[in-house]
Amino acid sequence: MVHDNKSATENECKKADLNCDLGESFGAWKMGNDEAILPLISSANIACGFHAGDFDTMRQTVELALDYEVAIGAHPGLPDLQGFGRRNMAITPKEAYNMVVYQVGALQGFIQALGGKLHHVKPHGALYNMAATNESLALAIAHAIVDVSQGEAILYGLSGSALIRAGREVGLAVMNEVFADRTYQTDGTLTPRTDANALITDHKVSIAQVLQMVESNSVTAVTGEIIPLEADTICVHGDGASALQFVEEIRQTFKERQILISAY
Amino acid sequence: MVHDNKSATENECKKADLNCDLGESFGAWKMGNDEAILPLISSANIACGFHAGDFDTMRQTVELALDYEVAIGAHPGLPDLQGFGRRNMAITPKEAYNMVVYQVGALQGFIQALGGKLHHVKPHGALYNMAATNESLALAIAHAIVDVSQGEAILYGLSGSALIRAGREVGLAVMNEVFADRTYQTDGTLTPRTDANALITDHKVSIAQVLQMVESNSVTAVTGEIIPLEADTICVHGDGASALQFVEEIRQTFKERQILISAY
Amino acid sequence: MVHDNKSATENECKKADLNCDLGESFGAWKMGNDEAILPLISSANIACGFHAGDFDTMRQTVELALDYEVAIGAHPGLPDLQGFGRRNMAITPKEAYNMVVYQVGALQGFIQALGGKLHHVKPHGALYNMAATNESLALAIAHAIVDVSQGEAILYGLSGSALIRAGREVGLAVMNEVFADRTYQTDGTLTPRTDANALITDHKVSIAQVLQMVESNSVTAVTGEIIPLEADTICVHGDGASALQFVEEIRQTFKERQILISAY
Amino acid sequence: MVHDNKSATENECKKADLNCDLGESFGAWKMGNDEAILPLISSANIACGFHAGDFDTMRQTVELALDYEVAIGAHPGLPDLQGFGRRNMAITPKEAYNMVVYQVGALQGFIQALGGKLHHVKPHGALYNMAATNESLALAIAHAIVDVSQGEAILYGLSGSALIRAGREVGLAVMNEVFADRTYQTDGTLTPRTDANALITDHKVSIAQVLQMVESNSVTAVTGEIIPLEADTICVHGDGASALQFVEEIRQTFKERQILISAY
Repeated sequence: MVHDNKSATENECKKADLNCDLGESFGAWKMGNDEAILPLISSANIACGFHAGDFDTMRQTVELALDYEVAIGAHPGLPDLQGFGRRNMAITPKEAYNMVVYQVGALQGFIQALGGKLHHVKPHGALYNMAATNESLALAIAHAIVDVSQGEAILYGLSGSALIRAGREVGLAVMNEVFADRTYQTDGTLTPRTDANALITDHKVSIAQVLQMVESNSVTAVTGEIIPLEADTICVHGDGASALQFVEEIRQTFKERQILISAY
Repeated sequence: MVHDNKSATENECKKADLNCDLGESFGAWKMGNDEAILPLISSANIACGFHAGDFDTMRQTVELALDYEVAIGAHPGLPDLQGFGRRNMAITPKEAYNMVVYQVGALQGFIQALGGKLHHVKPHGALYNMAATNESLALAIAHAIVDVSQGEAILYGLSGSALIRAGREVGLAVMNEVFADRTYQTDGTLTPRTDANALITDHKVSIAQVLQMVESNSVTAVTGEIIPLEADTICVHGDGASALQFVEEIRQTFKERQILISAY
Repeated sequence: MVHDNKSATENECKKADLNCDLGESFGAWKMGNDEAILPLISSANIACGFHAGDFDTMRQTVELALDYEVAIGAHPGLPDLQGFGRRNMAITPKEAYNMVVYQVGALQGFIQALGGKLHHVKPHGALYNMAATNESLALAIAHAIVDVSQGEAILYGLSGSALIRAGREVGLAVMNEVFADRTYQTDGTLTPRTDANALITDHKVSIAQVLQMVESNSVTAVTGEIIPLEADTICVHGDGASALQFVEEIRQTFKERQILISAY
Repeated sequence: MVHDNKSATENECKKADLNCDLGESFGAWKMGNDEAILPLISSANIACGFHAGDFDTMRQTVELALDYEVAIGAHPGLPDLQGFGRRNMAITPKEAYNMVVYQVGALQGFIQALGGKLHHVKPHGALYNMAATNESLALAIAHAIVDVSQGEAILYGLSGSALIRAGREVGLAVMNEVFADRTYQTDGTLTPRTDANALITDHKVSIAQVLQMVESNSVTAVTGEIIPLEADTICVHGDGASALQFVEEIRQTFKERQILISAY
């Protein structure tokens, strides 16, 4: 969690953040259903024009996030629009630093123009994945976030990854991100999508996993073993009726278990 | 000039700003001679990745400008890399607003990361030219600059143009830009490049024109008529030995006439 | 019509071509419903990567068009992906020539690789509109099509426009394009979209207009006046259930009136 | 060599091709010195707009190559303009196939328009390097070249690489490319640029290596061991006086040794 000086009392209410990738339309092409998901989440990761989004979409998405009082995050990606930032590219740490500063700066422009505040930064796609294991990329990205946000943005990264460690190393507040619909290995990494059991398709199983992660900071790996896993923020999707329905179910479950949905 | 509360005394030293477009390299392609021109100018207009420049070039150029203590400006352009932002495009005022916020925001990212301050914004190429006469584009750009810089950036625009008027209307400090190597019409506009007498190629004539503009706020039009023209900042070029030599000559002349070269 | 040596006999069956813009997806962004519209049309205008489409989409769309035995056309546009090629840009005739050769060449690459034949070229969006009135652009585009297709591609352009005249001038076969859902002025131009009566929303009125255009080579202008208008190919849309329904209705009407739907 | 039915007589004149990457300017940015190198080489690899080049540059470069009667090749690269196609990207074989068809098709457009013939295809930068070792990428690229050129283009690839093997497998004529200024390992691969002895800077040593490669189809590896190496085409550079001087020296040496410079 982001609070270093965590309250000592155990009566404190559990908290979890629901984050979603938004502002992924580009020009004439629409993607996602931002207005439907915004009322259901606590933080928005807004694409910054490299892998998705454009200056018109960014402005509109920041406006929407302000309307719905959702915490605003930058979602910088690789400069690969056609590949949606999902293809690994052999970039240097210096390039990673510069592309994050550029994209976060651009989003900050809209935030400043529209009267908000940058809450967090979550790298996208291949940049996120490479930074989860490549320490020099992770450190470059963390430094970029410190520098461009004057240390004030929270770093969202894969729970327990090199990116989270890099964030802590440079003094950033961090949020460990977990996934409701993905299974985990005994070392805490996600089961690769190429494996048959990578995805959880049963909503009930997904919700049980989310609850376990948030309430016990643990997850049951594919082997059956229970392993520790920090869970500060849960990535959800807004595409399609089923995804929205699932987020509603998580919200209902959290309400019943008195887990507060909040980005702060 | 930018100072509303100008000193009353006539003993005050004359001032002029020498600005130059910088950071126009892109990827493997080099353009300009930034290191040679930087010691000679007082303000730098840094390309922001749309018509020229990229995240690596921007970082390097901001570093250089900080090293040479030159005032840093954003130089946003149309999204037309292949055309270098010089081809008019039918954009809406809303698009103009958003593309300026995006690009200025991105540059501010680097300025913030590296510890500087945004001094001004000067639109580039076709965006500059369209805003010189199109009032709704001019107003949209002026609003963007107010909003993204919290009113603190100075707007550089063609002297006496719609862009300058728009800047004043929204409460921005403005700097009227003049050209040493272009002739003027009796209405204060530049002689179109398609006319035979558009360019001044004789350095002596250019310097005489600059002196007249700075010292008398007037220019001798192609008809011989002397017309009023505000001259706060002079656009110079850093490409090629002759261009650098010309800037040296302006500097020498200003020194002799006790005109202070300063962006402030 | 494309046949210079048109048969003299009046018994000849009337023909009309139904064309649709296809292959407009880009990367992760989907647009249109190519598989639903393909069985209903006779010619496909395939985006070539500048305003829409990418190399993966183009290959897939050429494959689909071959599967459905629909005539394959290139649909080159301005280099403005974010603006979907709809924003006018101040390009030179030389640039227009080169961008058409490039894009048509790229599509021909896929056609050659997959075993088809280029049937026609229809410029897109702002390039189409500018070429409808700008004679030097029109001529440059026509020359590009002659040169890149060895004179074998048919030029699709706005009925009666400068582009059609340019095509004839350089010896290209041409197809006059008409619109089912747009009203016409007495000079044969389309009523600007900014006018209230620009669009025809009633399917019955649209179909009556199409019939009149195809059967009598005339149209009833907004003033009520009947004016001549060549109608070789009708632009239809594949987006949405209503658009598909409308194409079905045109097909039914053509069947009843024994108008053959064909691109040849 | 490209000739399957090689003449048996030993009196036959030795041949070698000198190839150079050309057309690498982009928009306002100039790169290389195409006009100076063209008279000295036998084949030109022309950038196709993805990593370098644009539609205007391509047309101009094809015109120049036709003027100088130099064999015209396509030089397709990764879609990474800012990285000049030098950053590895995780593309699929299908993407590799499609991006090669697109780019070669686009260049063929200009060749067709201007009256020439496509002679060869040489992948660029990271695409070239990845295809040298990745067999499925190599095969996809080879298939693309067969399909887009109807089997008529020659494939240029790193001598002895997976790309050369793939070309042979699909029935393409191939040219093994060697480098005058790079040292080789005992397995026939290039010494990585990160090694101190990767580059040969002494012109005499370079020319001796070229002669050995062309005359004996062998090279002396960094260990001193002489290893076999097919050498059909030599990559030269046109940037800078020294590079041009070096090409002149190779030409002079070839003349003395009666080695014919030819792409055929």
